[in-house]
Amino acid sequence: MNEQLALGIDMGGTNTAYGFVNKRGEIVRKGSVPTKGHDSVEAFIDELKNTLVPIVAELGKDNLIGAGIGAPNGNIYTGEIVFAPNMPWKGIIPMAKLVGEALGVKAILTNDANAAGIGEMMYGAAKGMKDFILVTLGTGLGSGFVANGQMIYGHDGLAGELGHVIAVRDGRKCNCGRLGCLERYASATGIVITAEEWLAQRDDRSILRLHPGKLTAKAIQDAARKGDTLALELYEYTGKILGQTLADMVAVTSPQAIIFFGGLANAGDMLLQPIKKYLEDNLLNIYKDKVQVLQSALPDADAAILGASALVW
Amino acid sequence: MNEQLALGIDMGGTNTAYGFVNKRGEIVRKGSVPTKGHDSVEAFIDELKNTLVPIVAELGKDNLIGAGIGAPNGNIYTGEIVFAPNMPWKGIIPMAKLVGEALGVKAILTNDANAAGIGEMMYGAAKGMKDFILVTLGTGLGSGFVANGQMIYGHDGLAGELGHVIAVRDGRKCNCGRLGCLERYASATGIVITAEEWLAQRDDRSILRLHPGKLTAKAIQDAARKGDTLALELYEYTGKILGQTLADMVAVTSPQAIIFFGGLANAGDMLLQPIKKYLEDNLLNIYKDKVQVLQSALPDADAAILGASALVW
Repeated sequence: MNEQLALGIDMGGTNTAYGFVNKRGEIVRKGSVPTKGHDSVEAFIDELKNTLVPIVAELGKDNLIGAGIGAPNGNIYTGEIVFAPNMPWKGIIPMAKLVGEALGVKAILTNDANAAGIGEMMYGAAKGMKDFILVTLGTGLGSGFVANGQMIYGHDGLAGELGHVIAVRDGRKCNCGRLGCLERYASATGIVITAEEWLAQRDDRSILRLHPGKLTAKAIQDAARKGDTLALELYEYTGKILGQTLADMVAVTSPQAIIFFGGLANAGDMLLQPIKKYLEDNLLNIYKDKVQVLQSALPDADAAILGASALVW
Repeated sequence: MNEQLALGIDMGGTNTAYGFVNKRGEIVRKGSVPTKGHDSVEAFIDELKNTLVPIVAELGKDNLIGAGIGAPNGNIYTGEIVFAPNMPWKGIIPMAKLVGEALGVKAILTNDANAAGIGEMMYGAAKGMKDFILVTLGTGLGSGFVANGQMIYGHDGLAGELGHVIAVRDGRKCNCGRLGCLERYASATGIVITAEEWLAQRDDRSILRLHPGKLTAKAIQDAARKGDTLALELYEYTGKILGQTLADMVAVTSPQAIIFFGGLANAGDMLLQPIKKYLEDNLLNIYKDKVQVLQSALPDADAAILGASALVW
């Protein structure tokens, strides 16, 4: 086999998924290694190397053009992971350099949400679009803003932190130290916080009362699918906060679509319909009825791998 | 004289300024015609034509490469002015077409704040910058977002409406029909509204009490320069609202600078220092101490003319 391949790596706080991708966007081999459980970044790189080097040899070292990495707080200009709160290692990590040296190929790194955005643009729901916003709803909230067909990286490579736009002035305390950040409301973590607050304050019946102290976004999704009123209302509220905040973002970049990706977005219309409703309610007139609200068209694990691999070409 | 020239036109609700600009960014001839007072857009175009055609003949028709127009709610993709609340004529006006036909040259039109942004990027405070935000503080608040060295126009040409980002949820009623838009606080109009509210609610002494019912942004600036405490506090408050809101915008495009332009910005440090302070207070850690807060380096009238003319080249 002499097909050129790019390695896409999607680095998360818990797991690191990888895929070898050809130019048509087909993942010819994929797998993952744990991110967690390594005391040092060197130990993690060792495991990654031990896993990948034999596969690279098998696929043909000469076929591998390079590696693209998507990681939280990744900076495309420096190749560094910069103070990522959800990663096991603190400070500034020169991850592109470490991965490149381990595999003997050139490596390029960007923010995980930016990588997913590039994946959607090349192979997914944003195919052919030049102006869109990608929102990843996972443990936190990540984003990639594309304008004029280009990812907005900003002067320092750190643009697109929609999760830390203030959604509620003087609202919930965020891990970043500020108050009211969007991701404290609109993420798997955020919806659970809302649920816990409501269950403590209210006394309406809900399946969710059966999970005291260990509520998850998945449990909320299951309850909502069974018609649980409080669970459905949680999506309504989360969609309201998202729709309101995104209406302001539309006024900045006037996108053709906003694409939602990640665990919480798997709730589908239960979440997307409230987002769409509150987005439209809050949009300036000139933007009304123009912005598509879409779910990612790529499998969760694949968008970031495909996007990261696309950095290489 | 055989120098190539571009005509830059800055269209406002009251006046329309024009300038013939050479490739070095020098305005070789300028002037203005009233926008107001024409019952129809045709009558306005007639006056513009009668003024400009003799000048074009004098400068040499063959030297004129084209005309660039900056106008409120201008759409670069269609060349139309779209429902501009502050223009004398309502609805959709194909202004680029009308001006182009009147002068017999190709004409291109964009949003007035975008034109000013291009002017700053080519000849002003943003020279050499690839990522910045231009904010015009006039009767309303306009903006141009530049990322990767390109103006963000959005999929429909209508991006960059920072004035209609919600600064205060459920706040002041805006002309657009929504509540709490930034321009109701941070503009010549906005600061006067704040002043009138405060003068009615409070009883501290202020020079501004001498202007009952006819306060202007200029009167506030004059009072502040004389050390009037209430007037200075008005800049502090206006800067707070701007700084808070712009901190969210920085999280989207991570600009190298935010450049302020227009009548209210002429207050200089009285406004810029509070903006800088509240911007820094509200920024996510990774952006702190990186964003320059600057005043436009171009004369008020010239930035939009220069920017509009730059569309032609």
